[in-house]
Amino acid sequence: MTKTIAHELAKKQKEISIAEFFERNKHILGFGNPTRALVTAVKEAVDNSLDACEEARILPDILVEIHTKGEDGECKIIVEDNGPGIIKRQIPLVFGKLLYGSRFHAIRQSRGQQGIGISAVVLYGQLSTGKHTLVLSKIGEKQPAHLYELAIDTNKNTPEIVRNEIVTWEKEHGTRIEITIHGDYKRGRHFLYDYLQSTSIVNPHAQITFVEPNGDKHLFERVTDTLPAPTVELKKPHPQGIELGTLIKMAKHTSNRKLSTFLKKEFTSMGERTTDAVCRIAGLDKDANPKELTREEFIRLHKAFKKVKIMAPPTDCLSPIGETLIKRSLKHETREISPEFIVATTRPPSVYSGHPFQVEAGIVYGGKLDPNSPVKILRFANRVPLLYQQGGCVSTAALSDIDW
Amino acid sequence: MTKTIAHELAKKQKEISIAEFFERNKHILGFGNPTRALVTAVKEAVDNSLDACEEARILPDILVEIHTKGEDGECKIIVEDNGPGIIKRQIPLVFGKLLYGSRFHAIRQSRGQQGIGISAVVLYGQLSTGKHTLVLSKIGEKQPAHLYELAIDTNKNTPEIVRNEIVTWEKEHGTRIEITIHGDYKRGRHFLYDYLQSTSIVNPHAQITFVEPNGDKHLFERVTDTLPAPTVELKKPHPQGIELGTLIKMAKHTSNRKLSTFLKKEFTSMGERTTDAVCRIAGLDKDANPKELTREEFIRLHKAFKKVKIMAPPTDCLSPIGETLIKRSLKHETREISPEFIVATTRPPSVYSGHPFQVEAGIVYGGKLDPNSPVKILRFANRVPLLYQQGGCVSTAALSDIDW
Repeated sequence: MTKTIAHELAKKQKEISIAEFFERNKHILGFGNPTRALVTAVKEAVDNSLDACEEARILPDILVEIHTKGEDGECKIIVEDNGPGIIKRQIPLVFGKLLYGSRFHAIRQSRGQQGIGISAVVLYGQLSTGKHTLVLSKIGEKQPAHLYELAIDTNKNTPEIVRNEIVTWEKEHGTRIEITIHGDYKRGRHFLYDYLQSTSIVNPHAQITFVEPNGDKHLFERVTDTLPAPTVELKKPHPQGIELGTLIKMAKHTSNRKLSTFLKKEFTSMGERTTDAVCRIAGLDKDANPKELTREEFIRLHKAFKKVKIMAPPTDCLSPIGETLIKRSLKHETREISPEFIVATTRPPSVYSGHPFQVEAGIVYGGKLDPNSPVKILRFANRVPLLYQQGGCVSTAALSDIDW
Repeated sequence: MTKTIAHELAKKQKEISIAEFFERNKHILGFGNPTRALVTAVKEAVDNSLDACEEARILPDILVEIHTKGEDGECKIIVEDNGPGIIKRQIPLVFGKLLYGSRFHAIRQSRGQQGIGISAVVLYGQLSTGKHTLVLSKIGEKQPAHLYELAIDTNKNTPEIVRNEIVTWEKEHGTRIEITIHGDYKRGRHFLYDYLQSTSIVNPHAQITFVEPNGDKHLFERVTDTLPAPTVELKKPHPQGIELGTLIKMAKHTSNRKLSTFLKKEFTSMGERTTDAVCRIAGLDKDANPKELTREEFIRLHKAFKKVKIMAPPTDCLSPIGETLIKRSLKHETREISPEFIVATTRPPSVYSGHPFQVEAGIVYGGKLDPNSPVKILRFANRVPLLYQQGGCVSTAALSDIDW
């Protein structure tokens, strides 16, 4: 067979591991520069702590400590929580394997569905400083505390356990991590402080202590002892929020042999009558085998979802903060300004193409606020501060248009 | 053993596939909305074509065709090139497996080192429209043309071959792909046109034909028959551009038993004298086994790289366009304005912390340019137009500061 140029080029075509992909693309994953990397690292850890506490119905008490005493440009980040802890077997996987975690699966309001997770921080630390990550976790009063020193094998995307021992930890339960990264504390401090303050505002039930490298301590106090209402996992998708490709994938993997059963069992809000109407409008037999539909039939089905009036999905997967607590949080965090006017609102839940959502907002005005300084906008999604691309946001655009 | 909350939470901790990761994070990978998805999809395909032609030393002739006749919101994208083609065995992998390709490995100036590659477009098409991708490729005049209809198994991240046959294709060699995605042509058209025009400006050796859904044809003509100088792959990293973690990883995997041999063989610009100086300043024995250095010793070595004067890396991995061709391209693409003034410059190659780079710029002024319209800035990196986050760029900031 003739060797063509294509054969030559084929030699270079091979697979890379997700860890190598991360190395190449760290800028899009939040580690583009040492300032941003510092904030991303703390954020991934704090989001994990808040989510774990919320799932375990524990009032979060989180310590964030930064040390810059080591090598030039190195920041040691310590994040410690009083959460439920992580069982021994899972510790190396949660911190030492990319794309492993609990946050990727559920359809509910949780903080870290997006992004690449805490193991990416471990990897970034390892790549930029060569240092291993320390994880200490304890799951209950009478349980041992496990200390792990971890690295990531980037070729195989598996955790390397450098050290693993049982230690004494006076804490009843919780997790403490120490990750050293190449970070810029001088430039990052301001963003970090803002991130922690904002996080505290939208998590009034959380207590966050921030210890700076020089020992300065900031306490973002808990303003309520009431945990957010537990969110219910939305186990099934709503027909109006599904993409055609996902619908086809679901139908291919279903164990239901009839279209009507498939629709009723695997989607939310699909009762007998709605299912009948959808099938009729799509011109499909209710008893057809969903696995055997043609692409054209799926397209008709997908269109019928939009034509039939389908009940909105339940909104108990949402957990709003509530007007009282937003106001209390804002008042507490702006106490140095003593604003004249603090108002907050929680709109009723709504649904956009099958996705439940709810809008909450608060405004602080007057007092010692400098009338000449620009408006400060804090934006959030799922109780997580949005730190970047402020300009791309519709609320920023609307706020800039108002003549304050 | 007591079942704690941590045990309950552990049930949800599991691995997801890279394809699921993509689904969750498609906004950061360039598929956040139907407008952007359209441009990203065409860009991934065109970058591949340009890179393949360049490696095979072929003057690229690329056809980009968009059809919107199908379902509402669906765009069929066709990209056809006269490149070297892809050998049969590799076709399903290149298009049907995420993180597979040739562009992730080499240290040289190539277009698509970043981003997730063409298979992500195939996946996005499948998820958003349920349609399969068609790939036709031929590697030489007397070779058969292979047609593949492909999908991606997202659970396993492997290609699903729906159809594979040998067909007749009059073309001597090349690749043609057809991917149907959910895209917004009406809004995306403008960005797409700009992207193709910009691509043509920085690739004066390429001919790009753009056929719109209504049949309108735009020809971005080739203005030179000279291919860019072939770039030489920078096989070894430069000591001043390496991160500490990567240095440690290299030392752990080296087959060289002496530190001096390791430094001379696995880095560029490390001769006998430089190596001696580095070891001396780091206080390390030249004959030490690199695998056995402690982290503290690696830190000293890493610091010594910055203290010793090391020759800059070779810059033949760069392939500038050159002043003449930039001017010719700009003149051709702005011919409707008949500008009075076109000037371009190619600065000498330079090195920033071990990374070779080179700056080229061109300005068009006067003629029928509207004096009141804002300056239009085209930004590029490695011959690829930078389409987003214009504000975040230092050249944009500098240009806005000038009183034109």
